[in-house]
Amino acid sequence: RANQARLAETLHESCQFGAAHPYGSDTTETGMARLSLDDSDKAVRDWFIKSAESLGCKVSVDEMGNIFAVRPGKNNDAPPIMMGSHLDTQPTGGRYDGILGVLGGLEVLKVLNENSYETEGPVGVVDWTNEEGARFPKMAVSSGVWAEQVPLEDAWNLKEVTANHDSPKTMKEELTRIGYLGKNPASYRSNPFAAHFELHIEQGPILEDQGQKIGVVEGVQAFKWFEITVKGRDSHAGTTPLYARKDAVLSAARMVAAANPIAKRLGGLTTTGIFETKPGTVNTMAHTVVFTLDIRHMKNETLSQMEEECRAEFQRIAHEDSEKGVEVDWKLLVDSPAVEFNPDCIRVVEQSATDVCSALPQTHADGKLWRRMISGAGHDSCYTNTRCPTSMIFTPTKDGISHNPVEYCSAEDCALGASVLLGAVLRYDKL
Amino acid sequence: RANQARLAETLHESCQFGAAHPYGSDTTETGMARLSLDDSDKAVRDWFIKSAESLGCKVSVDEMGNIFAVRPGKNNDAPPIMMGSHLDTQPTGGRYDGILGVLGGLEVLKVLNENSYETEGPVGVVDWTNEEGARFPKMAVSSGVWAEQVPLEDAWNLKEVTANHDSPKTMKEELTRIGYLGKNPASYRSNPFAAHFELHIEQGPILEDQGQKIGVVEGVQAFKWFEITVKGRDSHAGTTPLYARKDAVLSAARMVAAANPIAKRLGGLTTTGIFETKPGTVNTMAHTVVFTLDIRHMKNETLSQMEEECRAEFQRIAHEDSEKGVEVDWKLLVDSPAVEFNPDCIRVVEQSATDVCSALPQTHADGKLWRRMISGAGHDSCYTNTRCPTSMIFTPTKDGISHNPVEYCSAEDCALGASVLLGAVLRYDKL
Ligand SMILES: NC(=O)NCCC(=O)O
Ligand SMILES: NC(=O)NCCC(=O)O
Repeated sequence: RANQARLAETLHESCQFGAAHPYGSDTTETGMARLSLDDSDKAVRDWFIKSAESLGCKVSVDEMGNIFAVRPGKNNDAPPIMMGSHLDTQPTGGRYDGILGVLGGLEVLKVLNENSYETEGPVGVVDWTNEEGARFPKMAVSSGVWAEQVPLEDAWNLKEVTANHDSPKTMKEELTRIGYLGKNPASYRSNPFAAHFELHIEQGPILEDQGQKIGVVEGVQAFKWFEITVKGRDSHAGTTPLYARKDAVLSAARMVAAANPIAKRLGGLTTTGIFETKPGTVNTMAHTVVFTLDIRHMKNETLSQMEEECRAEFQRIAHEDSEKGVEVDWKLLVDSPAVEFNPDCIRVVEQSATDVCSALPQTHADGKLWRRMISGAGHDSCYTNTRCPTSMIFTPTKDGISHNPVEYCSAEDCALGASVLLGAVLRYDKL
Repeated sequence: RANQARLAETLHESCQFGAAHPYGSDTTETGMARLSLDDSDKAVRDWFIKSAESLGCKVSVDEMGNIFAVRPGKNNDAPPIMMGSHLDTQPTGGRYDGILGVLGGLEVLKVLNENSYETEGPVGVVDWTNEEGARFPKMAVSSGVWAEQVPLEDAWNLKEVTANHDSPKTMKEELTRIGYLGKNPASYRSNPFAAHFELHIEQGPILEDQGQKIGVVEGVQAFKWFEITVKGRDSHAGTTPLYARKDAVLSAARMVAAANPIAKRLGGLTTTGIFETKPGTVNTMAHTVVFTLDIRHMKNETLSQMEEECRAEFQRIAHEDSEKGVEVDWKLLVDSPAVEFNPDCIRVVEQSATDVCSALPQTHADGKLWRRMISGAGHDSCYTNTRCPTSMIFTPTKDGISHNPVEYCSAEDCALGASVLLGAVLRYDKL
């Protein structure tokens, strides 16, 4: 079993780097702003490597800055079972999203060490770079490169969107700056895994609403990210009659508003998180708006339908509903089809969850304190799943709130999740 | 009469500072990006002062960086007749908006000099700071301080919106940095004018559409600028059900879209030029959107009605149409009621226009190559009009396009405007 106090302590220790947005007086009552490859991310990476090395791990860094810490087993020719997640956060992020998965992995290694437990094959922990897709707008881009689903150059050339708007830095520049541009290829070929298990907070309301403790994650809903550029014509707000306008802001606002009822009708989600106006003055119509559209649905086919309906509607707005007309251009940033995790991995997680939950004092009306579920959020596991057996473990999330400083998972639930991770890894190691 | 070639040459000479957005191969085929108090604005200010001094003017700078260049007359106890406009531009601005008014003023002084013409009272040219309200979002803020309609501290503390989003500079910091924080009070009391005449491009399509050459401007339509803040809650784009959202971007987009039909129905204009999302990542709903709303109408009462209808509709969207609701807060940036210029000033402009146009080879079906008109754009003259007799002269604007790099007024039309300005000033000087 995981050590609840130790896990909580190291998790919060790691959050000294990048703590932000305090909401209470306790030092742990803050959110996080640890943007990928910024100074606080460098600091927590250094801390992570020191921690892993002190546990006897061999640490390597690849050309995407992914950090692999591996504890040897009996047979070290076999590829390792990796426990992976991420240490980067949203600009207004919480202390658990991703962080729990990496710190939970370290906790598993500590339990193995203190029990002098020798695994069959090696077991390790990986910190994937820029999972959030917050600073550099492709989620899980670095596990994507490892899985050879995202070209290395595309990843390296990604430009930050959260700061330095006039001269954004690229991932490669920032990897170099903080000293995490490793020499090893970022590839499952030269760096294969036996399996990938990811412990993560649910980030949604289901476990809490159902009074359950553990999610056995069977898959991830489909989603796509788009950057949409609307081009009109800059002109004077006081002298340009409405009928003579090519107003990029008005058209883009109509598009954002139009996406929502499509999502509602088809049972999916659409979100615009970035909306930028150029040149950006009060009394000049923008010539250009760049906005993002994140669309999600459980089914690939319905996601396609959502996309098609949005495309048709945006086109209509651009041509029929925008006075002199605007141009609209779609760029795909992320395409993540619905994921089904590996049945063997799901089974060992389920066995481990059953075991861990059976020892709890709580009971549940349905008889089970865990449930099978689908993830609403994307994860590095979506990419690893294309190259090695993969599954995930979820813990409850207070009020279902994530990507927000008040994001919370109790120390007890964190430790339960880590115990399930431990049991799953050991079961898989035996297979 | 103004010297057409000389005016064109000096106008384009002044545009070497801040030229941007080329659209043709000729050096004059560019727009401008001379944002108030930036390095190019400092350079053109230095150039303007040297030019004015070489014409025998006494130059002074006030605490808003307004530059006053005065040519003595017979009786120098009388306040000067000032020809005023501005040398700052939009980020994607043109070579005429404001610039023509200042350079036209210098051209008038040159004509007086070469004719050794002695005016009754002094006559001068003023370059007002940040007329555009582009970099610092209050249009004509510095003539506003001079007119004691805008408090000095409010103006000094205005923060830039076009760059340095993380740590915007204030007007006072930038005035200090470029060395234009003058010692003289910015006030009509210590620095009174006999009158203020402003030559400007129309910035709209009317003169061109009517085949006319000069606008005798009787007034300016009413307008207000607002900064509107919408506060929701940041949460995860993939795990937050639509019904649980406080989506600031979606609500703000609906507000922008809702303002347009109100303007259309009431015969006014609404424009959103700035729309900013925080924290601004693809997969986090924004907790905050800040957008601007510029509303205009010929009539003060209808402008109030437009504002009231927008307020009611935005409130409805915030509370009824936004799932878990958002908060909306309005901040007034500029309040510029409809302006009626001084009848004496209008009359001398009309007399001068009649005289200048009568010498033209062209004729017009209506018999007049000039027309009385109302300005759609705001100008420094709106503020000077509250403290001294004021009126304006308009020249045609190609395709009615302004606040755009391709903004254009022919050299001939520029010179006609300057000649009308000359005639108006000399007539007023005689009164
Ligand atoms: N874990 C997490 O929030 N990742 C972000 C990827 C997504 O947008 O779903
Ligand atoms: N001349 C000019 O375009 N000034 C800007 C003020 C306005 O927004 O009307």
